[in-house]
Formats: sequence, structure tokens, C-alpha cells
Amino acid sequence: MKLYGYFRSSASYRVRIALNLKGLDYESVAVHLVKNGGEQLSDSFRALNPEALVPALVDIADEVDGGEVALSQSLAIIEYLEEKYPEAALLPAKLADRAHVRALALAIACEVHPLNNLRVLKYLTGTLGITEEQKNAWYQHWCGTGLAALESKLAADPRTGKFCVGDTPTLADCCLVPQIYNAQRFKCDLSAMPHLLRIHQNCMELDAFIKASPENQPDAE
Amino acid sequence: MKLYGYFRSSASYRVRIALNLKGLDYESVAVHLVKNGGEQLSDSFRALNPEALVPALVDIADEVDGGEVALSQSLAIIEYLEEKYPEAALLPAKLADRAHVRALALAIACEVHPLNNLRVLKYLTGTLGITEEQKNAWYQHWCGTGLAALESKLAADPRTGKFCVGDTPTLADCCLVPQIYNAQRFKCDLSAMPHLLRIHQNCMELDAFIKASPENQPDAE
Repeated sequence: MKLYGYFRSSASYRVRIALNLKGLDYESVAVHLVKNGGEQLSDSFRALNPEALVPALVDIADEVDGGEVALSQSLAIIEYLEEKYPEAALLPAKLADRAHVRALALAIACEVHPLNNLRVLKYLTGTLGITEEQKNAWYQHWCGTGLAALESKLAADPRTGKFCVGDTPTLADCCLVPQIYNAQRFKCDLSAMPHLLRIHQNCMELDAFIKASPENQPDAE
Repeated sequence: MKLYGYFRSSASYRVRIALNLKGLDYESVAVHLVKNGGEQLSDSFRALNPEALVPALVDIADEVDGGEVALSQSLAIIEYLEEKYPEAALLPAKLADRAHVRALALAIACEVHPLNNLRVLKYLTGTLGITEEQKNAWYQHWCGTGLAALESKLAADPRTGKFCVGDTPTLADCCLVPQIYNAQRFKCDLSAMPHLLRIHQNCMELDAFIKASPENQPDAE
């Protein structure tokens, strides 16, 4: 498998964690989101993913004519990995628990991350001309609101364990750790979020998460 | 089942379509996002979903002690419905095709909708004090960028059919139709998106989609 990503991309980071948790080998292909006007916008990358977003995963799918398949959107990629390589499972067995894990993952992927990614911040400072201070306040506002909602959800749920759901990492933890990385990078105040901090710490004791960290990628700067 | 939602909420609209496509009966409970300071912020709704976001689906899950389960996040709810009530299937059989459907759904749920929802627009006009004109330009920019990316993806893929993937509606169509509704409401220019318009039209010929429309909800204004 080939993973096209960027060391600091939160969505690429999620997929790296999932690949590592499943013990799957992959080749890392760097797509620099800033250099060369954004390599994700190149024709060669668009041929893989017309959305021009990282990550993209190229895999050999026996069921597909020609074999090779290019997948996009981090959560769709992880669901694919879960279906193709069931061990280690990133979704629990019971339907209601699976829905809970997915809801936590989506609470990050739909409510926090989209508001704080590079192209949005660029629009705010460029087109709307907001100041650096306003940009940081925006970042912290959405990161704070979204993670506080997640903290409430985890605090209220008896299924919360060593990890977001139970005592083994799931899809939710694959999304949580990159978001906490971003939150810390932008100095969001996480002091009122003990569940998130504790789970993050438990994750960061595992090789699968350490190996996936931005600073441990070949394209890290 | 009880679906807590709001007639104009895009995420609630997705779940209504999925429930209808599967022929499932449900009771609709209105949560007004504007009146009473936002009913989703009430203690009684937060008890169902601490995230304070619609939709929430309450179902009887036999596998859960006590039976009742409250689910949140539209895509997690639809995946739950797909696993519990497999017919009519909203995901195809082949793994690569399932990933493709999910990627299209997420391209809307993660790249377009989060930037254009009510609380974000409020922050822009309130905290950042942007003008009505700038707000509309923001809306049209992200709607335009996201839907153009989706159009490219559909144009490039041989699996695109009468609907987003093949000739029966999938999870991708459950997300597309509410997004087109929003785009039309905010006068986004869709003239360069023939695939989206054609698929939208095919969807709107089906009862499941018509019945799920905002104007056909009991809480419509």
C-alpha cells in the first residue's frame, strides 16, 4: 500500500495510526501542502484524488478490474482497512458501540478539524483580512467548543475506558490524537478536559501512535 | 424510533432520507435551533446528546442493557441503520465501492457543511463582524469549492450512474441532496456541475427524498 500524505496533516495522521494499529506495512509518499504552490493541487495528485486533498491510499483490491484502487477521505480509508483487514479491530462488535465510536470520530472530523485547517485559515487572513490574533481566537474557539463537547460525551458515557471507548484503541482514538496534537500546537487550553488528556496519554504510550506522529515522518521539517 | 431534528438541518435531513429509503417508521421530534435560545442547548436535549447537536436518534437496541440507545452524528446514525436494517442497502457490496461511497459522503460532511452551518455563520457576522455580503461570499466559496471537487470526482469515476454510485441511492446521495438544498437556498452557482444536478433531479423523483424534504416536515415554517 502507498499512503500519500503530509506529516502535519491531521487526516493523514489518522490513517497512519490505523495502519500501524493493524500492523500493515505501507510506503509513505510525501505531498507537500505548502511548497510548489501546494503539491496536492498538481495534475499528478489530482489523477489520484480529484478532490486534491490528502490523504490518498493506493491499494491492490483483488475485486477490482486492474487491481489498483485509489481511496480518499481519512475515515473512508480507515473503514476500508477495517473491512479488509479486520485485526486489530478499530470498531467494537455491538452495533450501538460501533455507532458511539463513529460518532466520536465524526465529532472531531466534522465539528472541529474542518474549521481549523490550512485553507480555511488562509481564507480568513487573506480574503477576510482578519488579524493573527483573531485567527488564533477562531482556532481556539472551535477547537475549544468541539473538544469540550467531546469531553462531555466521554464524561457522560460508561463505555469510556482507558481509551475513548473501552480498553483498546478504536477509530475514535485515531481521530483524537491528531486533534490534540493540533490543539497543543495552537495553544488551546485543555486543562478542563481530563478525559481527553488521560486518553491521549494512554495512546502516546503505544508504538502505533508514536510511529505515526508528525515528527517521526520522513517528510517532517 | 424517535428522530430528534430540525426541518432545515442538513444533518437531520440526511438521516430522514436514509430512514425513508429503508422504509423505517419513526417519530419526528422537533428541536428548534433558533427559538428559545436554541433548544439543542437545553438540559433535556443534552441528556440525549451532550454535544448539543441535532440529529439524535433514539432506538431500542436489544443488545444494550435497558434497551434504549441514543445515537448522534448523522453519518454514524446512518451506518448504524445500515448494519441493523440492511435493506435497502445504502452501501454497495465491494469494499472499494463502499469506500468510494463513504468518501463522497465525507466530502460533503467534512469539507462543505461544517463551514456553512449556523453557528459558524454566527461567529463570522457576530465575533468577526463581517458584512452580510462577505458572509454570502464565504458560503458560496466553500459550497462552490466543495461541490466542484465532488463534481470532478463524479465526472472522473466510471461508477457514477443514475445516482452518485451506480443506479440505486446510497449514503452519498443521502448527503448530496441536503447539500444541494442548502446551495440553492444560498444561491450558489451550480451551473458548471451537471453530474450533481442530474443526480439531484433523479433523487427528487423518489418518494423517500420528497418525504424527507424540509418543507414536508411537521416543524417546517
